[in-house]
Amino acid sequence: MIQQQYSSSLLENAVNEFAKLPGIGRKTALRLVLYLLKQSENEVDAFGNAMIRLRKEIVYCRVCHNISDTEVCHICSNQSRDSLTVCVVENIKDVMFIENTQQFKGLYHVLGGIISPMDGIGPADLEIESLVNRVKTGDVKEVILALSTTMEGDTTNFYIFRKLAPTNIKITTIARGIAIGDEIEYADEVTLGRSILNRVEFTNSFK
Amino acid sequence: MIQQQYSSSLLENAVNEFAKLPGIGRKTALRLVLYLLKQSENEVDAFGNAMIRLRKEIVYCRVCHNISDTEVCHICSNQSRDSLTVCVVENIKDVMFIENTQQFKGLYHVLGGIISPMDGIGPADLEIESLVNRVKTGDVKEVILALSTTMEGDTTNFYIFRKLAPTNIKITTIARGIAIGDEIEYADEVTLGRSILNRVEFTNSFK
Repeated sequence: MIQQQYSSSLLENAVNEFAKLPGIGRKTALRLVLYLLKQSENEVDAFGNAMIRLRKEIVYCRVCHNISDTEVCHICSNQSRDSLTVCVVENIKDVMFIENTQQFKGLYHVLGGIISPMDGIGPADLEIESLVNRVKTGDVKEVILALSTTMEGDTTNFYIFRKLAPTNIKITTIARGIAIGDEIEYADEVTLGRSILNRVEFTNSFK
Repeated sequence: MIQQQYSSSLLENAVNEFAKLPGIGRKTALRLVLYLLKQSENEVDAFGNAMIRLRKEIVYCRVCHNISDTEVCHICSNQSRDSLTVCVVENIKDVMFIENTQQFKGLYHVLGGIISPMDGIGPADLEIESLVNRVKTGDVKEVILALSTTMEGDTTNFYIFRKLAPTNIKITTIARGIAIGDEIEYADEVTLGRSILNRVEFTNSFK
């Protein structure tokens, strides 16, 4: 696309900014910017300022490192939750996904990524040291590792496992197996094999 | 989706704002907001302020109503363009598309929409009166109607044609026919029929 097509540098600038976002091409960016242009000044102010304020004022919970409005997030400060169980996740999206299942009543620990030498992310770049301290100094009885089943996820799981082993707390990982609603014949062999090895008592699995 | 899933009201607010944009669902909105959160404060400021400034400072060219940084846009103020020919388009995107073809050296007139009773848009909501004044008071020799080939586009074409008829200037419409690269057998019958009626001299069409 040639540059001279934009009849206004303000327009061009806004399109350029939108097109920096992942998955937004220049055509989509133009469409979104023209949509904003049709909204009232107040509405566009609200849009722009929501992003600016988010970035400027966001706080990370000093216990679990989830994003928060307060120094300690609403999950960590919720007295009715089980503070003995800590679920380790890669990022804040995973906290949301697990919260949406409404199956977990413990606390979280957000690593802020997983160990990935290809991307230059080592253990020191993640909240692993703070997890170890949290376990050592706190009342934690069980750490649940809920990372992706990828090479990087497994590496991170193993690294954390080794770091926490001396503390003698219970370390578990989320169940891997055939997804609910999936047919056996379409499952991959590794998953199917694991699901047989890690089989559970019938009554238990259906409660 | 339940509301309590967001651990921060700043995050929730930013996601809500993004999700107002057309074609952006809540999942995409969250992905985009988390991407912004990873950028530097300066970069997010630049993003937000680009939208706010665009809406606040944008100017519409007083001649053609295209968006512009100046009172008269760079197309209308360009002395090397043919000011005798005015191409009527629906919106500013159409100006960009036609400019990209590099086939038109005249000026534009942006209606700001087309007549659409279903959407409650009548002639008075569009820049039709200003087009008539522009033709009556100016030096215009030809008006090219470049609206969509829809019912609304045809209605608008006809309305403008009737308004301009007394001025006795030349009124043309862009050619309708088989698109370049299209095969005859896949063209619709109306288009194919029109392309035969409006056939052009062979040499002419290839120059």
